[in-house]
Amino acid sequence: MEVTNKYVTIKRHVEGTPKESDFEIKTVTLCLSIDSGCGDIIVKNLMVSIDPYQINRMKSYSSSHETISYAKGIVPGEEIEAYGVARVLVSENPEFEKGDLVIGVITWGEYSKIPSGRMIRKLEPMGLPLSYHVGFLGFSGLTAYAGLFEICKPKKGDKVFVSAASGSVGNLVGQYAKLFGCYVVGCAGSNKKVKLLKEKLGFDEAFNYKEETDLKSTLKRYFPDGIDIYFDNVGAEMQEAAISNMNTHGRVAVCGVISEYTDSGKRAAPDMTSVIYKRIKIQGFLAGDYMHVYPDFLSKTNDYLSVGKLQVLEDISYGLESIPCAFMGLFRGDNIGKKLVQIAEE
Amino acid sequence: MEVTNKYVTIKRHVEGTPKESDFEIKTVTLCLSIDSGCGDIIVKNLMVSIDPYQINRMKSYSSSHETISYAKGIVPGEEIEAYGVARVLVSENPEFEKGDLVIGVITWGEYSKIPSGRMIRKLEPMGLPLSYHVGFLGFSGLTAYAGLFEICKPKKGDKVFVSAASGSVGNLVGQYAKLFGCYVVGCAGSNKKVKLLKEKLGFDEAFNYKEETDLKSTLKRYFPDGIDIYFDNVGAEMQEAAISNMNTHGRVAVCGVISEYTDSGKRAAPDMTSVIYKRIKIQGFLAGDYMHVYPDFLSKTNDYLSVGKLQVLEDISYGLESIPCAFMGLFRGDNIGKKLVQIAEE
Repeated sequence: MEVTNKYVTIKRHVEGTPKESDFEIKTVTLCLSIDSGCGDIIVKNLMVSIDPYQINRMKSYSSSHETISYAKGIVPGEEIEAYGVARVLVSENPEFEKGDLVIGVITWGEYSKIPSGRMIRKLEPMGLPLSYHVGFLGFSGLTAYAGLFEICKPKKGDKVFVSAASGSVGNLVGQYAKLFGCYVVGCAGSNKKVKLLKEKLGFDEAFNYKEETDLKSTLKRYFPDGIDIYFDNVGAEMQEAAISNMNTHGRVAVCGVISEYTDSGKRAAPDMTSVIYKRIKIQGFLAGDYMHVYPDFLSKTNDYLSVGKLQVLEDISYGLESIPCAFMGLFRGDNIGKKLVQIAEE
Repeated sequence: MEVTNKYVTIKRHVEGTPKESDFEIKTVTLCLSIDSGCGDIIVKNLMVSIDPYQINRMKSYSSSHETISYAKGIVPGEEIEAYGVARVLVSENPEFEKGDLVIGVITWGEYSKIPSGRMIRKLEPMGLPLSYHVGFLGFSGLTAYAGLFEICKPKKGDKVFVSAASGSVGNLVGQYAKLFGCYVVGCAGSNKKVKLLKEKLGFDEAFNYKEETDLKSTLKRYFPDGIDIYFDNVGAEMQEAAISNMNTHGRVAVCGVISEYTDSGKRAAPDMTSVIYKRIKIQGFLAGDYMHVYPDFLSKTNDYLSVGKLQVLEDISYGLESIPCAFMGLFRGDNIGKKLVQIAEE
């Protein structure tokens, strides 16, 4: 048996900001029979995650990050792996049966053939929308949780600054930090987002960085007593400004540097003399290193959710064809909260 | 009773590289009688430490580091505090008696009046030269020890890179790392220093950075399997090159950034995408935060010393008048090992 499988791919390696012409949708025939006992499964994709880091895989560079599976370069024309939820159609893996709902590394396509050994597991939706599992309870949530609690080790009353604060990770960092008892300021790229941070998510303050001319002074205004924790999602001049406003023993969790991804000339050059005198820690991290805190993250997050203390911020587009646009939108700041694409309804 | 006290000071705030004309020697009369029971002491200075960080105190900038005593701005014309060894002449402090040998914060002068509460303690020289106590067994040693073991947490076999490796701290970092079982490469600014690192201090490799044109490639050559630990004494392009050659979970201890101190336009702008993917930690630190490891540092260091496993690298000038030249020499790389000035012989 066969199906027609459409998937999104890149026509060429992407330079700078991704453009519509960089993408194409390919249509291939997928054979639904697989070798008996080979461990592979074929799934029908339902919902996928759209994340900024994917741009790094689309670039033409001799990556030194090839040892990390999700940093591997994408070959133009080939399928693009992404985190998502799917339904098992065919299984030659004893762990899965036809009809199982699974979550893990699928593709930006209608169907995915998933080789044995790839990160995928059965999903019990627990009455929650599938989108929650892909975003909020998936890597976006774990990234926020581990970055804040494991890297930055907040104390009650710490002053926390979050950039891209209405993004998939940032909004949760701010909410966790508030619930923990920190003073939280976020920045975002529109007044609508700023309003949302303050009114819906409970941030103490928020500002539109596009309306500021001197970020160092801006942060001085919002943090007259200095910043203890900076959760960095953007890099470049914002990181420099945050570090120049940091307190002694300040911690910077470098989660993402979206402003540098599409502009290779953009870099943060923080004042290292300050880094020394203030004993600042700048730490890059990946959520995948913190799977051991996942149970803790999940139980705390579910608790907050069940009592209405945590807001879920999602931005869902519909249909495979919307993936390129959804992805490009990340770099224009179109999304509010976690960006997802629902490929199929069940 | 009075003495004539000569001391070194700055005529004005220093911009860029320190010049002879920035300094002057002042002569004042120091009254040797102090208020009874006030807690002050007056000491005759014997040996002082000459350190690059002092340049930051000589600059005219509104420092955000004023909370750290030894980062406080120096007022032109006034005495300059420095670590050193002295002999008590007059004491109105019950902790000290006339004739005691003391170590701590004195001044670049012949005599110092030390107010109650300043960091100073009695010194038992244990048969070792006073210079050892000021340098090697003082903050230079503790900086090397704490930076390497507490910040970088080496594992046997780790690949360690040290910049300014023949400097007061760098040479010890390399020696401790070798003794611990690491692979150690150092860089320095002359072929004489490179020879010394390899032949006398036991570094696995060393290179003259002034003879290299592309530091990233240079480090690739010396670390084909990547760098696990970078002990940074220089900052700027060397830090960038080291980070670009780092392995996953690499650690950068930022101890000093001497190349940035005299050139405000110089900054390190490491690739933050690499910092994320490789989960690199960049940590500024000050030895003063690690006084709790001082006993451990002292006993290990004395053990190594007594069995001849650690080489002491010192560079001593003589006479108060030599201080400006000794200090300026730090920024030309004149010194090999710990720079000290012996102000008086006993």
